[in-house]
Amino acid sequence: MSNHVYKQIELTGSSPTSIDDAVKSAIEKASETLRHLNWFEIIETRGHIEDGKVAHWQVTLKVGMRLED
Amino acid sequence: MSNHVYKQIELTGSSPTSIDDAVKSAIEKASETLRHLNWFEIIETRGHIEDGKVAHWQVTLKVGMRLED
Amino acid sequence: MSNHVYKQIELTGSSPTSIDDAVKSAIEKASETLRHLNWFEIIETRGHIEDGKVAHWQVTLKVGMRLED
Amino acid sequence: MSNHVYKQIELTGSSPTSIDDAVKSAIEKASETLRHLNWFEIIETRGHIEDGKVAHWQVTLKVGMRLED
Amino acid sequence: MSNHVYKQIELTGSSPTSIDDAVKSAIEKASETLRHLNWFEIIETRGHIEDGKVAHWQVTLKVGMRLED
Amino acid sequence: MSNHVYKQIELTGSSPTSIDDAVKSAIEKASETLRHLNWFEIIETRGHIEDGKVAHWQVTLKVGMRLED
Amino acid sequence: MSNHVYKQIELTGSSPTSIDDAVKSAIEKASETLRHLNWFEIIETRGHIEDGKVAHWQVTLKVGMRLED
Amino acid sequence: MSNHVYKQIELTGSSPTSIDDAVKSAIEKASETLRHLNWFEIIETRGHIEDGKVAHWQVTLKVGMRLED
Amino acid sequence: MSNHVYKQIELTGSSPTSIDDAVKSAIEKASETLRHLNWFEIIETRGHIEDGKVAHWQVTLKVGMRLED
Amino acid sequence: MSNHVYKQIELTGSSPTSIDDAVKSAIEKASETLRHLNWFEIIETRGHIEDGKVAHWQVTLKVGMRLED
Amino acid sequence: MSNHVYKQIELTGSSPTSIDDAVKSAIEKASETLRHLNWFEIIETRGHIEDGKVAHWQVTLKVGMRLED
Amino acid sequence: MSNHVYKQIELTGSSPTSIDDAVKSAIEKASETLRHLNWFEIIETRGHIEDGKVAHWQVTLKVGMRLED
Repeated sequence: MSNHVYKQIELTGSSPTSIDDAVKSAIEKASETLRHLNWFEIIETRGHIEDGKVAHWQVTLKVGMRLED
Repeated sequence: MSNHVYKQIELTGSSPTSIDDAVKSAIEKASETLRHLNWFEIIETRGHIEDGKVAHWQVTLKVGMRLED
Repeated sequence: MSNHVYKQIELTGSSPTSIDDAVKSAIEKASETLRHLNWFEIIETRGHIEDGKVAHWQVTLKVGMRLED
Repeated sequence: MSNHVYKQIELTGSSPTSIDDAVKSAIEKASETLRHLNWFEIIETRGHIEDGKVAHWQVTLKVGMRLED
Repeated sequence: MSNHVYKQIELTGSSPTSIDDAVKSAIEKASETLRHLNWFEIIETRGHIEDGKVAHWQVTLKVGMRLED
Repeated sequence: MSNHVYKQIELTGSSPTSIDDAVKSAIEKASETLRHLNWFEIIETRGHIEDGKVAHWQVTLKVGMRLED
Repeated sequence: MSNHVYKQIELTGSSPTSIDDAVKSAIEKASETLRHLNWFEIIETRGHIEDGKVAHWQVTLKVGMRLED
Repeated sequence: MSNHVYKQIELTGSSPTSIDDAVKSAIEKASETLRHLNWFEIIETRGHIEDGKVAHWQVTLKVGMRLED
Repeated sequence: MSNHVYKQIELTGSSPTSIDDAVKSAIEKASETLRHLNWFEIIETRGHIEDGKVAHWQVTLKVGMRLED
Repeated sequence: MSNHVYKQIELTGSSPTSIDDAVKSAIEKASETLRHLNWFEIIETRGHIEDGKVAHWQVTLKVGMRLED
Repeated sequence: MSNHVYKQIELTGSSPTSIDDAVKSAIEKASETLRHLNWFEIIETRGHIEDGKVAHWQVTLKVGMRLED
Repeated sequence: MSNHVYKQIELTGSSPTSIDDAVKSAIEKASETLRHLNWFEIIETRGHIEDGKVAHWQVTLKVGMRLED
């Protein structure tokens, strides 16, 4: 852990398939432009309903990344 | 979003299989008698343990539905 | 429910695979040494990221067990 | 627990006598029109004061009921 | 306050104009079909943004109503 | 409710007997020096244990009083 | 900010007109007898309903005041 | 308070009679095997309903105990 | 909602006029430099007091924006 | 603990030096005019930044005092 | 992080000197009898006041430890 | 306070020495690349334990900065 400083951001990913998949979607999208992503925490799990079924899972994450020295 | 009014209710579904399945179970049961279900949010995830294993997943949802005009 | 007294403890399990699997991992580990495990509640879902992907899911549970008479 | 779906509602009962009595009052009133009431949780305990004494205890409950198949 | 029992429900109203107006919208809609509405509490204030401006205010209320004897 | 302004204060009462009695103790003590006490809400219930038994119940209240015109 | 010490109190103001007006009502009433009021935070917004309409807005504030040296 | 170190545990007691009795039940059961129990705080009050009446009160406590030197 | 990923940021706007106006001020300022602002949620409403009157309303928002593909 | 009644107030102290010092500052200031101060709990720790450094630590406390008999 | 399972416990340490010292006191005491202590989180900071000064700092920690394989 | 708009970000700093030092570390690191840092609030204090002692303090801050006109 040494003396690094970390920044946390909040992201929401979605998936028609599952909670786990919506998490992966947000993290993979974020890692396209951000480096040193280190950990995440789920802070909200929601979804949309269409015709009486779950149409999309939507998961909001706090994601921590190490600031570069 | 216009000028609709929404009502939220709280439901608990369960499943021997997974968290995602317990969510689907609650929503499909609710949609048998309620119309215009629109979104949900997971507010609690619990379960029962039997013989040292997860026997049932139990997920509590807030479910939003549009009131008819 | 009768007149039993229950004790709750807090455990964190992890899995490279899924949220559900991290829960099972914590409960199976705990049941090796503790008896009468009865229910659980998820209180935190986190994970570690490596190379822009979820490397481990980490789930913290409150687990209730019945105290023996 | 099987595959039942539960609905939770929020009720407030009151009593000039005690906290316990305000809970019973809400549950007995609700059970006149609702079936399959299963559990409750106290979420707020308030009261009114008149002439420097507790005049009424007011207890708000979340009450869970099993939806019929 | 006597011995009445109250039920609380959760509603979301919206308005293009203001927070206060979204509250009134939810209460007036609810009072078309529900009697003895007695009080409300704002539990969430959100809104939608279009073209860099607030397009709709959306206010979620807990609304208390007296159950009839 | 008109245009009155209310002030809330926080008090802790205790009793060797019961939760309800600790509430009454705090309110009766407060009403010796404060006028227009109007309502209370329990915000914490604690107690001390001696020799494996409850020795004192300690209840913390928010108490609302009407400010005089 | 220097070395001043601040005290916070909790007040509830009401208004038949609007949320903003209920805030102003509480602060103007408090400033009749208290000096050095410095800031406020809204901690609860409620209201009463009569005949299916908002009759009074009731806003609870935490108000900070600087203690005199 | 000196330099002692305390440990807190979480227990749930139940009683067919009252909230106060469920607290006592948990503390008396715990004191059979644990020494130096010092204080408790109620963190949840729930119950089961049978035939439209409260069948059991269930109270969850955080209980603090002094670790021996 | 499809497969978009959203980012949430936290902003505080202020206004001498009203709560609604402080919200609009934060959103219009943010939209000068950020694209695809989609929704907001009020998370704190505070203000400064001068001469016994509200001098500024200060509203803190969580604002969600869609990340570009 | 006997049958005393306690009142809690909320204070904010500040210090250019440290968190601990800001706590002491609030308590010493309060004890100039209030008697029987008994305990405190930190409820918020904030500070001001000037030229990229901590200029003041600001700590908000709940302070409990025994009411005189 | 691999597949280890962690257990969290809650401890309170105290010190006449400082917040940091009360944390160290709890952890050093716990490490006399528990192995594999891994991390902590402060969940409450309180203290006792005597003669208008801080007599003891009291800090409550959640402490995580790795369960042995 | 005028009409400025503020943005809040979340940072975690660490230090082998003390809580206060971990706060300073996060703020000094952030001020290397960000201007107009104005205030902070501690939202979490954690640490790592090695060989039964505190090895690192880790403090998470919300930091507010003024957006440039």
